[in-house]
Amino acid sequence: MQPGLMRQGTGILPIASPGFPGSTAILRQPSWPGSATARGPAAHGEASEGALIAPASALCFGVAVTLACRRQRRRLRALSQKVSGIALRAGGPQAGAGVTVVTSTRCFGGSLQRLEHTSAVLGGCTMLFTVFVPGGLFQGKQLPVVYWLSGLTCSDENFTQKGAAAFEAAAELGLILVIPDTSPRGEGVPDEEPKCYDFGVGAGFYLNATTEKYRVHYNMLDYVTKELPALVAGNFSILAGKSSIMGHSMGGHGALTIALKNPGMYSSVSAFAPISNPTQVPWGKKAFQLYLGPDESAWKQYDSVELIRSYQGPPLRLLVDQGTADQFLEEQLLPGALQKACEEKGMALTLRMQEGYDHSAFFIQSFIADHLRFHSSQLTGLLSWCPESLPAPSVYSAATEQSLAATAPRLRSMVVLFLYICVCIAMQVLFIR
Amino acid sequence: MQPGLMRQGTGILPIASPGFPGSTAILRQPSWPGSATARGPAAHGEASEGALIAPASALCFGVAVTLACRRQRRRLRALSQKVSGIALRAGGPQAGAGVTVVTSTRCFGGSLQRLEHTSAVLGGCTMLFTVFVPGGLFQGKQLPVVYWLSGLTCSDENFTQKGAAAFEAAAELGLILVIPDTSPRGEGVPDEEPKCYDFGVGAGFYLNATTEKYRVHYNMLDYVTKELPALVAGNFSILAGKSSIMGHSMGGHGALTIALKNPGMYSSVSAFAPISNPTQVPWGKKAFQLYLGPDESAWKQYDSVELIRSYQGPPLRLLVDQGTADQFLEEQLLPGALQKACEEKGMALTLRMQEGYDHSAFFIQSFIADHLRFHSSQLTGLLSWCPESLPAPSVYSAATEQSLAATAPRLRSMVVLFLYICVCIAMQVLFIR
Repeated sequence: MQPGLMRQGTGILPIASPGFPGSTAILRQPSWPGSATARGPAAHGEASEGALIAPASALCFGVAVTLACRRQRRRLRALSQKVSGIALRAGGPQAGAGVTVVTSTRCFGGSLQRLEHTSAVLGGCTMLFTVFVPGGLFQGKQLPVVYWLSGLTCSDENFTQKGAAAFEAAAELGLILVIPDTSPRGEGVPDEEPKCYDFGVGAGFYLNATTEKYRVHYNMLDYVTKELPALVAGNFSILAGKSSIMGHSMGGHGALTIALKNPGMYSSVSAFAPISNPTQVPWGKKAFQLYLGPDESAWKQYDSVELIRSYQGPPLRLLVDQGTADQFLEEQLLPGALQKACEEKGMALTLRMQEGYDHSAFFIQSFIADHLRFHSSQLTGLLSWCPESLPAPSVYSAATEQSLAATAPRLRSMVVLFLYICVCIAMQVLFIR
Repeated sequence: MQPGLMRQGTGILPIASPGFPGSTAILRQPSWPGSATARGPAAHGEASEGALIAPASALCFGVAVTLACRRQRRRLRALSQKVSGIALRAGGPQAGAGVTVVTSTRCFGGSLQRLEHTSAVLGGCTMLFTVFVPGGLFQGKQLPVVYWLSGLTCSDENFTQKGAAAFEAAAELGLILVIPDTSPRGEGVPDEEPKCYDFGVGAGFYLNATTEKYRVHYNMLDYVTKELPALVAGNFSILAGKSSIMGHSMGGHGALTIALKNPGMYSSVSAFAPISNPTQVPWGKKAFQLYLGPDESAWKQYDSVELIRSYQGPPLRLLVDQGTADQFLEEQLLPGALQKACEEKGMALTLRMQEGYDHSAFFIQSFIADHLRFHSSQLTGLLSWCPESLPAPSVYSAATEQSLAATAPRLRSMVVLFLYICVCIAMQVLFIR
């Protein structure tokens, strides 16, 4: 696999390449005032000399910049190590802000904290959620937040325990990760008898229930979009108005529907194997029937395909990965319906069918760093995330800018090479003559 | 955190920087025949012209090499993606080679397989182990093997489920990871009554038991050093004679003792929070008493500190990470004793006390990519792993070569910069005159 690559000359800095099919992430740097400086000395000579002196000066400048950058990087790394040696408390929860720290573990130079609080919107039950806060140079900085929504049967612990690749990427990109539970939990929370894996506790479907039995506790939509963000904002050093959302399976459905129902609230949304069209599949039909009642028209507000059709808001970019060996692909997930809806609407969807991957955490971990780079690109604007293949024709216009951005440095290199060869030939002709 | 950096001109290619305190990994590339080619055109001019033409030609050559390398990388990436699209079977177990595939999951472009077999050395019980085989460009290649030994209470599943960062690194570095169980398991395997977490099933201590009750089944030393390598060699495409070993806690003790007891068998050894001096701590005393009997002189052959003192074999490089917030640090692990023994012996130990990290999988995952880079450097020779601080004076000679290798490119860059500045000044003087 290819390691990352830094080219100071062009101000383009692709970071840690994913190694798997997907995308290239490019960090935009402030461009160096190279041309101006390079022209400086040449102004004292004749016009014809400029052709010789400018590239040499530019070259010296380039070498100097390269060395300066390397020194800077070394300094930054040393500082980062120094800072991360200090106990990680800044950016962590403050006392009396509605949460209790259950555990706090150091992880990839940052901290992973499990927090407990009493949830008003979930009928007063005690909820747990996990937050990863990057350390090192990001210590104490205001950072964007990415929410992770897990799938059926999960709590926050599944992702936390298996999420090493996610924390590694978040630590590098400077993203706070927030991982809530998948439903209300605890005594007094209603459920079906006998308990089933695809409904009730561990399967809140990220909606607000309306049926008598479930409407007091099962309000995961309000929990994820209102109560939890307020708690996170009150307890962590976050960049206001900069959040993204992602999830897996039922959590993928949650991420997509929540982003589509709240235009402008999330900078980007991505999903792994989402239940794309729940009104048409067994998991969705069962849950919606029990949470929302028999009126199928009420179900549509929680169906990504339906929400895309009726979407009215700022342009939203979707990234979806789907394993081809996923055991639920045909019956429950229907990514084809999502793709069709996006094509019809002209919504920018990057759907990647990942050969041989199943529905497991190994699938998620294999691509999560790339998803976080995607979110970082939309949240910070410092990173440009370019899918390797263009989206469908209907969203071609949305992709053009990105693909051009990816091509530009290559063209620039070619022009520079051509100019240098010209100078080289000119010099040889000049001196042989 | 800093992304990786490629400098074609000097033939040095530091790969994905860990971002955390530790080390820099540098991939050695075949050096380009730059000087010879650059001198080519200059030979036609006068000697004085050489000073002007050579750097320009060298520059053109440099740009051309840069572009060629970039093209090559793009081609390699495209090929890698193409290859990884093919079902991953090459390199996987063949039928009838003594193992049965229980599960096979795609993971980071490679495959994660859980295998079952009947173990002769463990008293005929059925054992499970997991193997990660990189895909992509490594598909079908003969690759080095790194063994991972887990700690108390674990099976192969703990590391597998939480090991995303390890598989990501192994996929990039082209390492096969083999993760055995921590003890014999199943019906008929003797254990203490009542069952305890630190002895018996899940706590084999990687030794060959000699007491009547345990000697038939508890032969984890023979299992890890003889039976398992033979199974791996018979079923996977491995690079013969190229293996390394690492582990955590009891597994760290296992890795260290196994490497020290078998000089030359492993190219390198590393450990996370190992039980360094088990004859002196409660975990070790309890286990050795029951597995080896009351004669304490027999215990010494399974104590890393004792084994280092009596080591006679080729130079062995040890890497040990230890969290300062580890709850077992003072009572059970004793890294100080290991350090003292290494200093006295002059053995090259890099012991890193990692500020604020505990004994958990988060600690392991935060540094495992760096450990795998360390092993890769020792296994392949293509990658140079340089600790940021030098080991203790007694092993200074062992570190000198590495630190020089890291300094050389910096010196080279300075010389190149100096030459270019001279040329630049000469040109300006020439033309202003």
